[in-house]
Amino acid sequence: MANRKPLNILMIGQGFMGRAHSNAWTQVRKFFDPPLMPVLHTVAARDKQKVQEFADKWDWLNCSANWRASIDGDDVDLVDITTPNNTHADMAIAALKAGKHVACEKPLANTLDDAREMVRAARKADGKTFVWFNYRRCPAVAFAHKLVASGKLGEIRHVRASYLQDWADDSVPLMWRFQKRHAGSGAHGDLNAHIVDMTRFVTGSEIAEVSGAISETFIKERKKLTDGKPGRVSVDDTVLFLARFDNGAVASFEAARQATGNQNRNGFEINGTKGSVKFNFERMNELEYYDATTDRAVQGWATIICTHAGDHPYLEAWWPDAHLLGYEHGFTNMAFDVLLALAGKKPNVPLPDFEDAYQTQRVLAAALVSADEKRAVRLSEVR
Amino acid sequence: MANRKPLNILMIGQGFMGRAHSNAWTQVRKFFDPPLMPVLHTVAARDKQKVQEFADKWDWLNCSANWRASIDGDDVDLVDITTPNNTHADMAIAALKAGKHVACEKPLANTLDDAREMVRAARKADGKTFVWFNYRRCPAVAFAHKLVASGKLGEIRHVRASYLQDWADDSVPLMWRFQKRHAGSGAHGDLNAHIVDMTRFVTGSEIAEVSGAISETFIKERKKLTDGKPGRVSVDDTVLFLARFDNGAVASFEAARQATGNQNRNGFEINGTKGSVKFNFERMNELEYYDATTDRAVQGWATIICTHAGDHPYLEAWWPDAHLLGYEHGFTNMAFDVLLALAGKKPNVPLPDFEDAYQTQRVLAAALVSADEKRAVRLSEVR
Amino acid sequence: MANRKPLNILMIGQGFMGRAHSNAWTQVRKFFDPPLMPVLHTVAARDKQKVQEFADKWDWLNCSANWRASIDGDDVDLVDITTPNNTHADMAIAALKAGKHVACEKPLANTLDDAREMVRAARKADGKTFVWFNYRRCPAVAFAHKLVASGKLGEIRHVRASYLQDWADDSVPLMWRFQKRHAGSGAHGDLNAHIVDMTRFVTGSEIAEVSGAISETFIKERKKLTDGKPGRVSVDDTVLFLARFDNGAVASFEAARQATGNQNRNGFEINGTKGSVKFNFERMNELEYYDATTDRAVQGWATIICTHAGDHPYLEAWWPDAHLLGYEHGFTNMAFDVLLALAGKKPNVPLPDFEDAYQTQRVLAAALVSADEKRAVRLSEVR
Amino acid sequence: MANRKPLNILMIGQGFMGRAHSNAWTQVRKFFDPPLMPVLHTVAARDKQKVQEFADKWDWLNCSANWRASIDGDDVDLVDITTPNNTHADMAIAALKAGKHVACEKPLANTLDDAREMVRAARKADGKTFVWFNYRRCPAVAFAHKLVASGKLGEIRHVRASYLQDWADDSVPLMWRFQKRHAGSGAHGDLNAHIVDMTRFVTGSEIAEVSGAISETFIKERKKLTDGKPGRVSVDDTVLFLARFDNGAVASFEAARQATGNQNRNGFEINGTKGSVKFNFERMNELEYYDATTDRAVQGWATIICTHAGDHPYLEAWWPDAHLLGYEHGFTNMAFDVLLALAGKKPNVPLPDFEDAYQTQRVLAAALVSADEKRAVRLSEVR
Repeated sequence: MANRKPLNILMIGQGFMGRAHSNAWTQVRKFFDPPLMPVLHTVAARDKQKVQEFADKWDWLNCSANWRASIDGDDVDLVDITTPNNTHADMAIAALKAGKHVACEKPLANTLDDAREMVRAARKADGKTFVWFNYRRCPAVAFAHKLVASGKLGEIRHVRASYLQDWADDSVPLMWRFQKRHAGSGAHGDLNAHIVDMTRFVTGSEIAEVSGAISETFIKERKKLTDGKPGRVSVDDTVLFLARFDNGAVASFEAARQATGNQNRNGFEINGTKGSVKFNFERMNELEYYDATTDRAVQGWATIICTHAGDHPYLEAWWPDAHLLGYEHGFTNMAFDVLLALAGKKPNVPLPDFEDAYQTQRVLAAALVSADEKRAVRLSEVR
Repeated sequence: MANRKPLNILMIGQGFMGRAHSNAWTQVRKFFDPPLMPVLHTVAARDKQKVQEFADKWDWLNCSANWRASIDGDDVDLVDITTPNNTHADMAIAALKAGKHVACEKPLANTLDDAREMVRAARKADGKTFVWFNYRRCPAVAFAHKLVASGKLGEIRHVRASYLQDWADDSVPLMWRFQKRHAGSGAHGDLNAHIVDMTRFVTGSEIAEVSGAISETFIKERKKLTDGKPGRVSVDDTVLFLARFDNGAVASFEAARQATGNQNRNGFEINGTKGSVKFNFERMNELEYYDATTDRAVQGWATIICTHAGDHPYLEAWWPDAHLLGYEHGFTNMAFDVLLALAGKKPNVPLPDFEDAYQTQRVLAAALVSADEKRAVRLSEVR
Repeated sequence: MANRKPLNILMIGQGFMGRAHSNAWTQVRKFFDPPLMPVLHTVAARDKQKVQEFADKWDWLNCSANWRASIDGDDVDLVDITTPNNTHADMAIAALKAGKHVACEKPLANTLDDAREMVRAARKADGKTFVWFNYRRCPAVAFAHKLVASGKLGEIRHVRASYLQDWADDSVPLMWRFQKRHAGSGAHGDLNAHIVDMTRFVTGSEIAEVSGAISETFIKERKKLTDGKPGRVSVDDTVLFLARFDNGAVASFEAARQATGNQNRNGFEINGTKGSVKFNFERMNELEYYDATTDRAVQGWATIICTHAGDHPYLEAWWPDAHLLGYEHGFTNMAFDVLLALAGKKPNVPLPDFEDAYQTQRVLAAALVSADEKRAVRLSEVR
Repeated sequence: MANRKPLNILMIGQGFMGRAHSNAWTQVRKFFDPPLMPVLHTVAARDKQKVQEFADKWDWLNCSANWRASIDGDDVDLVDITTPNNTHADMAIAALKAGKHVACEKPLANTLDDAREMVRAARKADGKTFVWFNYRRCPAVAFAHKLVASGKLGEIRHVRASYLQDWADDSVPLMWRFQKRHAGSGAHGDLNAHIVDMTRFVTGSEIAEVSGAISETFIKERKKLTDGKPGRVSVDDTVLFLARFDNGAVASFEAARQATGNQNRNGFEINGTKGSVKFNFERMNELEYYDATTDRAVQGWATIICTHAGDHPYLEAWWPDAHLLGYEHGFTNMAFDVLLALAGKKPNVPLPDFEDAYQTQRVLAAALVSADEKRAVRLSEVR
């Protein structure tokens, strides 16, 4: 290990995603044999005391309360952005200008304008860009991608995707996630972003048109955190829309935060002419597969536990069959692929860069136009 | 039993539905104790020889090749229509004019015009009308209706409904179901009709607007039955749309005939503020129920086997717990409720009459306008 | 139909099984095209008034309060026995002596002595014998039999079978099922009989040894139906045992009436060197199948909905794909096979005669010896 | 964190379990806030080069090729044993004599004699002992324990436990796991050990008698690793037995390595008078719970995703609802409880010490006597 070239990482942010990324950069060198040696060089966040505690806990070598200064540090190779969406553009563009590689949390940005600027900066820069659509690295999802790519599903006809949660009942106060100026949107950017990315990834096709979008805020006021009085919610609780992929498939998308009983049902079903797959993150180790090319008498949905080293992506690094993986493993798997890419090698499955994430952003934007104007919207209208 | 008043039935048609209805009218008096005694009086169909054979097999007392003449028979009390959709209006209106009760297969008609005429005839007539939306009488669906009506789900927020089949791959020839002049539509009238009715029934709410509808015919040509040469398919393979219920709930609907792996997935999920239910006809004896009002530690989707006499509708007539019911039982259960209604008693759960079925018809019509004009359509536009 | 030879049936008994059999003999000629025409000739039972009402309801042509006299009737072809187990031997032997065919409910008898006498009578008689192990005719079970017979599972290694119910909590009074003199045994004869028969049927192998049997009566007293005072339960609540099949497979069996949450979990799992199957009657239309001979990457338990005409036994008679069958269909399917056998044709899957049912009876008897003597018991010890 | 007292750990072994334990001791301080600070002080293993590489990869401060010498090191507080079963006794006894705490992998030993010696040493020593029955710390299993302990299941009547795998087909060569002198036993010690421990843990009751045990080696010869020639397998492939708990419950146990389709089905079902639970490690985040005390109409098996902080053990340390945990989390959770216990605090659920693990060992030994002598064996016979 000593001989591998180090990759010095600057991570900005220390929240939920900060923990997930710190864990990934640590675990990747223990479970995999990456071609570069990730070094937890510096973590940057606003609050000096908190960032010090965070650095201690997660074994970051340094900490900083000034991300701009840290970005310009000579020894930083990769800037990993885990802060709220409205800060992504500034940080990513600065990092790219400073010649660093950038790994940015999803969604790319809160606005299409910001996203476009980020893409432009990426085109001009030497550094590589990555966006943490971590669910692509859930082995069952990566395997679904491979099944489709190998032609096992035939021609894709139907896509059904939904990301349903139920945490946001009326007892939840008016936190930043319910305010547009911080969060950009509600379930749409938080959850639809994932399923738009996943279905693009698994089908290998782009969305050409969206239609019929509905955006709804069921709970219009929540208690303010400051004084407990009612405050206005300025983001959606749910956004649904229909779509056409450019391969002709029809599709439905739904993101929701009050879909009672669905704690984290991030999933899809894809029907092709030769077979189908189904995925639900609540059973993230499983892919359901229907093979319509076998003997009709034994056709049925097969529950594949995607934990077989050799057959299922990333599993050579982990445990024996059906010794399950959890949520954070997707991040570690992605860290491995990022290290492969930075070493000039091919990742296990395609990595989303800014360009790629921008396509997802356009779909989300088109859905909002559709909801506003109550009409179908071609993706070509949204640039 | 001898003392019960007989109800003389004239059934028109002898196909798939003819079998299901004959069975229902026979079984109902064996498993239930209906207040009227159904008599399989006459079956009418075009082909003299076939209708005779059918009558022999299913114990009809008489058969006829002239439905019009039979309708006018003095001793007929109820006319049961099981013929193709494009014949419903003529038969139903004639029967109503003759003073008979009418039980008509779904969908009510192929066109909104026909449906409107049928409703007008029903309003003027003395006879009662019924439409065979048999899935309402699947005990799990009837129980879902009761749960919602009792307030156990709270306020309804989300409805997801789909009726997915996969029998129509390109090996299937150009039968009547693929021709508009006979079938009216493809998956839309055949399958969406059921889930629109079921969700209206279970939620107790009407659809106010539809949007974003997509109608697609994936397989545009099929082999003609006559000469095996390619012929044009004139109906849809799939229709999707989004909707708003007038209680504010958002909804998605999808009917498909090429959703590989889904042989008969006629189902819905409904999320309320206090709980949720899920149903899939492929496991028709089960209702999944999530109760969000209990101790959080033990909350989960519970699989209720809806076979408990006393607790689940219709089960007092059938077998002990978890001795499952099948497809045809829904028809028998409906036959029982029709007999209750005709005897002036209350059915187990509401029965759809022509007026009610017309509301479903309007939703289907609105979806077609939405698909054509690529815009949201208020139900009030469609009358 | 008029040309088919009639088969006149005398059914003895009018309880739960009387309903199931009456239904089967009626439905079989409507859904199938049997080679003989079953005629519901006479139903016999003790209570004159009740048997008359039963005959009216289920369309039996005659009724009788004297089964012995009816058995001797010249025009009876088949005697169908649905009365309690302790009456089977008398009736079956009388019927065989009178030259009739006999279809007897399971288990064959309450004692091994009775069963042996019945087998002897059958050997000497001209009539054919059948035992109503109806679950063999559940299409998923029949299909499992065919899969094993075709070699798809390879060599059988493991059998796990259990029939679990939960109706018998301490609120249930001291009905006849809890009294040895009427019922013979509790869960053992009622439930283990089915799973011993099913696993013999599906594996095609006989049990060579049983061991470790445990028989337990958790609730030792129940309220008497007469005066509500405590009365002694004289049968088991649960019986478990292990076994060896003569093909070398190891097996476990369990019958229980207080297995909370299991309303009617009559099921098995069978593991072979090439594949496995799982069945649970609570989802009776499904067979789970694991094919270990395919590509390892896509191996998983497939849920086969056994409703495909042509591929799954009996389905040509019923409904389209995934239009489910219910509990009573197994009886109707068996009625069809009995009619085939009596017409000299091959049934869809093997029919159990008295000889065959006697093997099941020996296994049950061996388990009781094992429980009493706390040791392994070879089947050869029990004759 | 700096202020917490360190706990210096010596780990012996560097195989599969060495990885799992190293990970646990690292992750525990990042995700939890343990009262002691675990220090990865020294890893000891035979091969000097490999142990150095392992230490580098997993961040152990020191490495050693001499475990005896390391045990005597003054600064070691806890000795963690992850080596093969036949080495446990020597190491554990030496460590206890040296005044250290000991955490030993399961099963306690290969022989009851060894296990007894270990218990004696533990009784005399000052150090605490722990045995890595990691599945107790799977949140769903820990929650099942709590449900039973709280009385929610009422009186326990039935226990069904099995640990089924399918990796050992005839292509697998004669590795150490198939040789008695190394492994002690096959599936029995490897897999039955876990389910005996889990069911004792969840029910809170001890096994009083075992009966009917069957031990079988289906594949009697395998290719030797050295020369590829056939060599004799000297351990079992499968062991089944029945049992009685001292609370009166009846039970079945089965361990198997050729149960095709079951990759890691480590599970149990427990039926009580008021409710039941079911667990299967292949869906380790879920506990199925049937509450028989609620309204009969809505009773059903509920799938509880055991990931709710506050309600489900250990979850306060991990991710939001339904962001699943994986296999290794059980070890990290146990590491946390060990640290609590060593700091004089109460673990989340009871920790097995040598005394406790010895009870499991006695059950395994009794099963072998039962298999040999083909009779029921009281636990009191085995000491």
